[in-house]
Amino acid sequence: MSAADAPGREVLARVFLSRVLEPGDEVAGRWVRERGAVEVARCLRAGGPQLVGVTDKRWGGLLTRAQEADAARDLEVARDAGVRFVVPGDAEWPGQLDDLGDGRPLGLWVRGPASLRMWALRSVAVVGARACTEYGAHMAATLAAGLAERGWVVVSGGAYGVDGAAHRGALGAGGATVAVLACGVDQAYPRGHTQLINRIAEQGVVVGELPPGDHPTASRFIVRNRVIAALTRGTVVVEAAHRSGSLVTARAARRLGRHTMGVPGPATSSLSAGVHELLRDDAVLVTDAAEVVELVGDMGELAPQRRGPVLPRDLLEPGARRVLAALPGRGTASVAAVARGAQTTPDDAIARLYELRALGYVERHGDSWKLTRQAMISVRGGRS
Amino acid sequence: MSAADAPGREVLARVFLSRVLEPGDEVAGRWVRERGAVEVARCLRAGGPQLVGVTDKRWGGLLTRAQEADAARDLEVARDAGVRFVVPGDAEWPGQLDDLGDGRPLGLWVRGPASLRMWALRSVAVVGARACTEYGAHMAATLAAGLAERGWVVVSGGAYGVDGAAHRGALGAGGATVAVLACGVDQAYPRGHTQLINRIAEQGVVVGELPPGDHPTASRFIVRNRVIAALTRGTVVVEAAHRSGSLVTARAARRLGRHTMGVPGPATSSLSAGVHELLRDDAVLVTDAAEVVELVGDMGELAPQRRGPVLPRDLLEPGARRVLAALPGRGTASVAAVARGAQTTPDDAIARLYELRALGYVERHGDSWKLTRQAMISVRGGRS
Repeated sequence: MSAADAPGREVLARVFLSRVLEPGDEVAGRWVRERGAVEVARCLRAGGPQLVGVTDKRWGGLLTRAQEADAARDLEVARDAGVRFVVPGDAEWPGQLDDLGDGRPLGLWVRGPASLRMWALRSVAVVGARACTEYGAHMAATLAAGLAERGWVVVSGGAYGVDGAAHRGALGAGGATVAVLACGVDQAYPRGHTQLINRIAEQGVVVGELPPGDHPTASRFIVRNRVIAALTRGTVVVEAAHRSGSLVTARAARRLGRHTMGVPGPATSSLSAGVHELLRDDAVLVTDAAEVVELVGDMGELAPQRRGPVLPRDLLEPGARRVLAALPGRGTASVAAVARGAQTTPDDAIARLYELRALGYVERHGDSWKLTRQAMISVRGGRS
Repeated sequence: MSAADAPGREVLARVFLSRVLEPGDEVAGRWVRERGAVEVARCLRAGGPQLVGVTDKRWGGLLTRAQEADAARDLEVARDAGVRFVVPGDAEWPGQLDDLGDGRPLGLWVRGPASLRMWALRSVAVVGARACTEYGAHMAATLAAGLAERGWVVVSGGAYGVDGAAHRGALGAGGATVAVLACGVDQAYPRGHTQLINRIAEQGVVVGELPPGDHPTASRFIVRNRVIAALTRGTVVVEAAHRSGSLVTARAARRLGRHTMGVPGPATSSLSAGVHELLRDDAVLVTDAAEVVELVGDMGELAPQRRGPVLPRDLLEPGARRVLAALPGRGTASVAAVARGAQTTPDDAIARLYELRALGYVERHGDSWKLTRQAMISVRGGRS
């Protein structure tokens, strides 16, 4: 890291706090909102004064963690693992996470070529049981592939079962997928998904609240789910038993005003019982990607297309500009052709294409991409 | 038929009209409402004057049918087949059919030991595809058995597939079931269900709008569905493809203000696609009989139990009084024991028990029956 890149006090404080505090701690979130991250970090490092709303025992635990935390070292380890740290106010920060209030992440550790903020704009969570049935795996993969083909980003938790099938379905369709982990994003959890998670980090985005090296715990899985719910426009639960963690994600989505959806299954399947419970509340029954997009792709989503791209071409990142320029003025192009034209890798081309999709410049049609009508006008206008 | 039993002019007119007019003909229903059945029948027999709202061609067809109709003979054939004819205003007429307005049946041909009116008070329709899957047949049978065990009457259309499974599920649980046919109730349609329909006529009720000997047609199946919807508190669709006749029943139920329910299935099954379509509208997802009863057994249903039986004991039919007297003051009794105590057949005992259930006198618990608390007080009061 050069001197010009040196992290500011705010970033260092948030890295430090992400090591000391547990994700989703709303009492701590309130301290940070009221006093600022730098002051809270200073107070924890100095051993006092004791912050309000915390027991002596817990305060002691935090001070011990604070003594062991080394923000500069965490950033160094992260950088070596290809991981960046994104904080509120950064260009890549997904603003919709602010809906979590004092439960908002202190920052996000991010691995992968795409802009998390851009991707999250047009994303849907597909979650469900780890011990899913073949039917559940099939539905997760099919839904995710269908969403990817419609230019939507598939967000899930990287777990076995439905999550893995959803990630793989999106990857297999040359699509965009985000894994939100409950551990450090340099870790692969579960171990059996090491290759999958590394693949997501190449073609998609791996993201989490926990600093490098940190391990998942039962409660971390639960609080991680609120990030999946908040990042996305809606959550689809594919299979879930009663009291499944996926229902926590769906209920968080509902509380946050996101769409909650469920895929029906046989009434005789205990792995559909939790989904049916959701559907008997107010979740919407969906059976394919078209129905999901019909729900989440509301007027707000379509509007930018009609108004034209939301960001002027000149303000695009150079990589995105090159990919945009590689698309033909008429007709469609494959990812491979776009990558060749932009002189980049297919993975990078996919990352940029879904960013451009979120901005209203391009559309996906089956396995090909094309300029939107508005983008064509703007490009031709620019060329004339 | 003795002179004392001789049918009145109104009944004869309605028998005649049920032979001449097609079920569900709302134009004809309006004639009957405005001029009375006797006058409409006289006009059709006399060949004029031509009634309003009917083409010359159709009028000619009606006159031909009128020439061939013989109401007295129809009643005789029906009586020989153990079929009675119930008209609006009769003690056995189910008042909720009046919700059909001018589409209300002119009368109902009824076969079976129970009171259709009593049974319809606590009834649920379970309908679905003829070519159902094993899953659909299993769910229909399980739901129907569960409803029967909770003291509810299962209404269906007597068809292959879901209908047959629902009837059999109710019969197998020693329960009450009603088959609403789209042909004369002395006919067995489909032929493969001859034994089933005869069995329903012994332990339950077979009912229809068409006079003895009449055959079903495609349109008669469709208009029959409105009777299923109107008779019951709600309609459960178990399996149905897109554009299935069961969806007609469900939509009629919704229009009539009845509950509409659907059993989910795999999103990959075309036989669940129609049900999922309903559930994406405003039908309620149900997975077992308890959920159905939770919905249809509302306060209106429970209220009579709290207030005590709705009909004084002295006004009960002698058969029902005998069955009531055969129940123990404390504890439960099987159908066989009740039948022995009342000196009647088990089928008759079942008919009376479900009537008494509708009136708030008795409850079913698993395979046994007992007096409700209010009935016990009333019985003990009567005995003291």
